[in-house]
Amino acid sequence: MTTAAGEGSGGFDPRDVVARKRDGLELSAEEIREVVLGYASGAIADHVAAAFLMAAFINGLSDEETSEMTRAMVDSGVTLPLRGVGRPKVDKHSTGGVSDGVTLVFAPLAASLGLAVAKLSGRGLGHTGGTLDKLESIPGFRVELSAEELERQVEAVGCAVAAQSRDLVPADGALYALRDATATVPSIPLIAASVMSKKLAVHTDLVLLDVKTGSGAFMKTPEAAQELAEACARLARSWARPCLAAVTDMSQPLGIAVGNALEVAEAVAVLRGEVTGRLRDLAVAFAVRAQTALLGLSEDEAERRARDALDGGEAAGSFRAMVEAQGGDPRVVDHPDRVLPKAPVQVEVKARDGYLGPMDAEALGRVAVTLGAGRTRKVQAVDPAVGFEFYPKVGDRIDGHEPIAVVHARDEAGGQRAAELILRAISITDEPVSGPVLIHGWTGGD
Amino acid sequence: MTTAAGEGSGGFDPRDVVARKRDGLELSAEEIREVVLGYASGAIADHVAAAFLMAAFINGLSDEETSEMTRAMVDSGVTLPLRGVGRPKVDKHSTGGVSDGVTLVFAPLAASLGLAVAKLSGRGLGHTGGTLDKLESIPGFRVELSAEELERQVEAVGCAVAAQSRDLVPADGALYALRDATATVPSIPLIAASVMSKKLAVHTDLVLLDVKTGSGAFMKTPEAAQELAEACARLARSWARPCLAAVTDMSQPLGIAVGNALEVAEAVAVLRGEVTGRLRDLAVAFAVRAQTALLGLSEDEAERRARDALDGGEAAGSFRAMVEAQGGDPRVVDHPDRVLPKAPVQVEVKARDGYLGPMDAEALGRVAVTLGAGRTRKVQAVDPAVGFEFYPKVGDRIDGHEPIAVVHARDEAGGQRAAELILRAISITDEPVSGPVLIHGWTGGD
Repeated sequence: MTTAAGEGSGGFDPRDVVARKRDGLELSAEEIREVVLGYASGAIADHVAAAFLMAAFINGLSDEETSEMTRAMVDSGVTLPLRGVGRPKVDKHSTGGVSDGVTLVFAPLAASLGLAVAKLSGRGLGHTGGTLDKLESIPGFRVELSAEELERQVEAVGCAVAAQSRDLVPADGALYALRDATATVPSIPLIAASVMSKKLAVHTDLVLLDVKTGSGAFMKTPEAAQELAEACARLARSWARPCLAAVTDMSQPLGIAVGNALEVAEAVAVLRGEVTGRLRDLAVAFAVRAQTALLGLSEDEAERRARDALDGGEAAGSFRAMVEAQGGDPRVVDHPDRVLPKAPVQVEVKARDGYLGPMDAEALGRVAVTLGAGRTRKVQAVDPAVGFEFYPKVGDRIDGHEPIAVVHARDEAGGQRAAELILRAISITDEPVSGPVLIHGWTGGD
Repeated sequence: MTTAAGEGSGGFDPRDVVARKRDGLELSAEEIREVVLGYASGAIADHVAAAFLMAAFINGLSDEETSEMTRAMVDSGVTLPLRGVGRPKVDKHSTGGVSDGVTLVFAPLAASLGLAVAKLSGRGLGHTGGTLDKLESIPGFRVELSAEELERQVEAVGCAVAAQSRDLVPADGALYALRDATATVPSIPLIAASVMSKKLAVHTDLVLLDVKTGSGAFMKTPEAAQELAEACARLARSWARPCLAAVTDMSQPLGIAVGNALEVAEAVAVLRGEVTGRLRDLAVAFAVRAQTALLGLSEDEAERRARDALDGGEAAGSFRAMVEAQGGDPRVVDHPDRVLPKAPVQVEVKARDGYLGPMDAEALGRVAVTLGAGRTRKVQAVDPAVGFEFYPKVGDRIDGHEPIAVVHARDEAGGQRAAELILRAISITDEPVSGPVLIHGWTGGD
């Protein structure tokens, strides 16, 4: 059987590539480049690329194909060589979760430890928060930096968190939007290519990946998360770029705060050494890996330095310098409650006596969206002030007289609805349950 | 794993259906209707439908899904009840081939035997000729008939061959164009749904399918053709509509003429009983099946009547009446050489002594396209006069002194090039080879 048309149309026909992937064949580097760069340039139509993506989703992509796809995506735009940055450069990426403020803590922490972090970040979509949205809750904070501004700031301050520019891996934005529209998002090779293309387009000495797993993550099982972590690590290896990937727990919010200004306030508290817990622990774990890999320190020494930087104020100082460099009000570090926007209504949430059991963390993330803290479509504005704090972790004893959460809402009705949704998303058990581990494991490195 | 977006967008999300087919699940009738009718109405975008088609291509469609898809396609437009036609109604469809003039012969032949044929036909695309293009080589012939005109003519004359109106199965045209652009044409269920939707939208008492197989057919092997024939027959059965499907040879041109006016001239010669051979044999075979099924005749009696109608002039008379009713010059039946357009240049093609061996019949079909008789894109005009006659059949003795073909071209250079392409598409063997059977078998019925 052959396709009916195409005769007489000499030269490259993207349908031939689509047909080969449809039939489960391995594509050549040239074929993948033609499709990816053709789509990025507009020469290949949405529907042709959609057929390619579905064929790739179902029949898979080999490591070589994934690597070539990533290379073509990087080649679709400019790269960020960061030649003007003298310190060892580390990048960090999370696959997305609820109350995932690791970047807010890690970037200044790493900077205070002598590393450089030039972090290009995204906005929140769906139940996951976005680091840019969070930082923009700080009055004056600018996330749009030119490549030169970014590089200069990183060299001067040690860290910067900015919006990914449109000309960096433009193929990824185009392909991701198409995947979102065509039910081809949850494919390990396609996710790996998307994640890593943005990391590999920025020239750093180490890429740290935080692959979330659990009810609040895109990868619901540790096995799927491990698969993605390994695919990303293999991809980095094929580029000869050091990469370490952790599979970490997202079966409950990582921190306490869910919502933009609330998460900044929590990050500030962690950076000032005032708060311990899983958010601090994970940021420290990443800082340890970065220091052992890039500064040649032992794990013990690296951990001690990281804890000292948090407890001694150096990490908070780096955050203050970064906020100031990006036009934000630096007093956010010293008086977050005076600087950050506040929601007019607070609603306490109480549950029955018992133990906190398993929860639907994605549903919890959506509660914040319902309050206005997130967006369901890319064009929506977010409300920086709203959200909620959720205090207990799985396995914790719950006292029915004490609030387990406080909702920050625009109005009483919205706050009450959010409180109900929170209670619906969690479970209270009579017998104690054990809490999930924070880090399932590390992949990559040699 | 879940897709990232879609939250908060209440109601039907076509991506959910795409995801289910992507994951190999069986879709409900409602899901298929939403996609097919949504696409036909423009509510579902090309890229979403393309992802659906690729998922359906790779993971397949069950008989129930194929039937529901066909039903939704029929429901996308109007149907043709043909209530005003008193005679038993038969429809006939070919999957397309080279020198396939069966409809030109069968429709008037069946009409002359007391049956009614309301044939909605298509134009040629690629290497296959189109019945409408052929008939339009008759000066004045109109293929655009309203539903009322069509019905009135069929009742009066017994047959009509007209263009499918835009409001009959509009989903098919839209889906076919998308399949052609996305490498999703050669799927048995999708082809079956496309073919049968157009047959089932016209209310006839019997559908005859001519599923071609061989180098000049879309189905290159008898096995693939048989699979399609069975899929179409099952589809008809699920609609409780009588259908008989033949798998027939297309490893060489069916008749002698390839090209629009040339094929009309050959059909006229067959209708006048002047020419025997495979084109006549196949038209008679279909006329026999139609008569045994609809008139209750024995095969012998049915065959005798069909041969008599060709040899006695009744079939030619029905053709004359049809041409006249559709505005064409009826003298085409008596003096085709005076009425039909002629190409200015004739080039004889000679081969070496031997036997005609296997050939690339699709390449032969493309020779006619090269001459201008066909089109590579839907919007092209065709040249009615050009084409070629190819005389021998596989296994025939070839005498190097006698022409095996005559090319009818616009100019000498085009004629010479076509002659070379013809010789390149065929083979001459030293030992006699056996010719292929005409009819591999029949499917359907009870």
